[in-house]
Amino acid sequence: MKIAIAGAGAMGSRFGVKLQQAGNAVTLIDNWAAHVQAIQANGLVVTKDGHDTVVPMTAALPQDVHSTFDLVILFTKAMQMDHMLQELKAQLSNQPAVLVLANGIGNVETIERYVPQQNIVAGTTVWSSSLTGPGHITVTGTGSISLQAIAPDQFHDLDRIVDTLNGAGLKASPAPDVLAAIWKKAGLNSVLNTYCTLFDCNIAEFGALPNWRELTAGVLEEFQAVAAAANVAFDAQADTDLIAAQFAPDKNGDHYPSMHQDMANRRPTEIDFLNGYVAQLGQKLRVPAPNNALLTQLIHSQEALHGIA
Amino acid sequence: MKIAIAGAGAMGSRFGVKLQQAGNAVTLIDNWAAHVQAIQANGLVVTKDGHDTVVPMTAALPQDVHSTFDLVILFTKAMQMDHMLQELKAQLSNQPAVLVLANGIGNVETIERYVPQQNIVAGTTVWSSSLTGPGHITVTGTGSISLQAIAPDQFHDLDRIVDTLNGAGLKASPAPDVLAAIWKKAGLNSVLNTYCTLFDCNIAEFGALPNWRELTAGVLEEFQAVAAAANVAFDAQADTDLIAAQFAPDKNGDHYPSMHQDMANRRPTEIDFLNGYVAQLGQKLRVPAPNNALLTQLIHSQEALHGIA
Repeated sequence: MKIAIAGAGAMGSRFGVKLQQAGNAVTLIDNWAAHVQAIQANGLVVTKDGHDTVVPMTAALPQDVHSTFDLVILFTKAMQMDHMLQELKAQLSNQPAVLVLANGIGNVETIERYVPQQNIVAGTTVWSSSLTGPGHITVTGTGSISLQAIAPDQFHDLDRIVDTLNGAGLKASPAPDVLAAIWKKAGLNSVLNTYCTLFDCNIAEFGALPNWRELTAGVLEEFQAVAAAANVAFDAQADTDLIAAQFAPDKNGDHYPSMHQDMANRRPTEIDFLNGYVAQLGQKLRVPAPNNALLTQLIHSQEALHGIA
Repeated sequence: MKIAIAGAGAMGSRFGVKLQQAGNAVTLIDNWAAHVQAIQANGLVVTKDGHDTVVPMTAALPQDVHSTFDLVILFTKAMQMDHMLQELKAQLSNQPAVLVLANGIGNVETIERYVPQQNIVAGTTVWSSSLTGPGHITVTGTGSISLQAIAPDQFHDLDRIVDTLNGAGLKASPAPDVLAAIWKKAGLNSVLNTYCTLFDCNIAEFGALPNWRELTAGVLEEFQAVAAAANVAFDAQADTDLIAAQFAPDKNGDHYPSMHQDMANRRPTEIDFLNGYVAQLGQKLRVPAPNNALLTQLIHSQEALHGIA
């Protein structure tokens, strides 16, 4: 398959390597010029278990991409999604399948502004990766992907995408309710990412707080109420159990969530597509979500204090 | 007058010095043994404008006080108020006037468990002081006191207390509605103390946040609703104006509020008597106060992360 990875940071690069090694023609597309140039000049360096591999790959800035693709995988961060899609208008003209696995709620709504609903596949993934520097990622562990077409009745190509991902060892499987899966992951991130960033702590330290259950309930009970009003299945208790399972040091306990890394590296956070999305949707549907609204404000305050525009 | 200062930290010590220098017999009472011993051994050191003065003063642990007083001024922190009053039962047996100027809401309710209502005077003060070490305070600027008897019809001694305070240069004046004044100061502290602690910033940095008005409104609109249900006058807009007036560097801008100092020095904060009090009272009166409830949780989380029991 001819595949574009739009947003080729840590995760996009990892997926790109695996898909290319399985025989697909992959182009990494990213707006970070230093990253693109490093890959063009030296290949992508992948560090795993302390060992470096250099993988020659095609990489380009969005404006320098002139071909079209069978599949576009969007790994752009939620707040850059709209801009990336604008830049890729020409690449979307042949109506490729567009797969989005990025974190956050509301991505599908953004993509629908540029891509016919019947071409969109959405999902979640628990693969992970770190961008160690321009042209350099560090990867650990394995993961999986759950995905579903947004208009299942009109999308007949899902098997081919699942096969392509599985051919690259990415462990993809169709999900029966992708919106519920997206909300479930967003609920987890809206607790762990948000509080670990606010408190500058890792996941185990959050889990050791005497009041982690109150903090979690404040967020997830509002998620459940807003989801219900939006006809999305969301179970606050199931999400709480999932969160509690991350605390063990041999699970994700010693991990600092990606939002914490964004704040530490002076990058804008995804808060508006996590707690902030639920607060806004709650306002629209007249379901109060004051905890999520305040947490959104608090993270934006912290961004301002860190000089993040 | 024979005056006891119960809770002779930064503020209590400053008041004690001024009242003693005006000719009153003052006893400083405190539970911090090193502080009491330092004053007993060497006097109280007062640093002002870089210049040290040593003031010989009577200081004692609560259990070592055997006399009674005409006036007891409570400067104990809100969370230690109940314990201090228990320890001073013998000193309260002669029914002295009890004046409380400590920060936080709910102090009067605590005092009423030990002192007849008709003996209680409450108020607020904008004097300030820092405890630099055992037996050592550092003072700057001047201040004033607003005070009122809790049962004005039954308390006929207010003039004498006002005169005593003014005789010591403490600029006291009767307030028409002391509860409103206490809530007004608590509203200011529930914004500035709480957010500056949460964000580890000073007052000017809080005031420079693009969303300081949203953060402030979230707290104070709930204050206003709960106050209304409790028949206390509270004007969110007036409190917002008061807060905005603190941002200037030549006002309090470069000041880190006392709660920030408590957190930095690993001492429990007064959050339960600021945002926490309003959240609890709101729950009792069925007026939602989710912002104040969440902020209370967040500060307690931060205390736990700092190892504060």
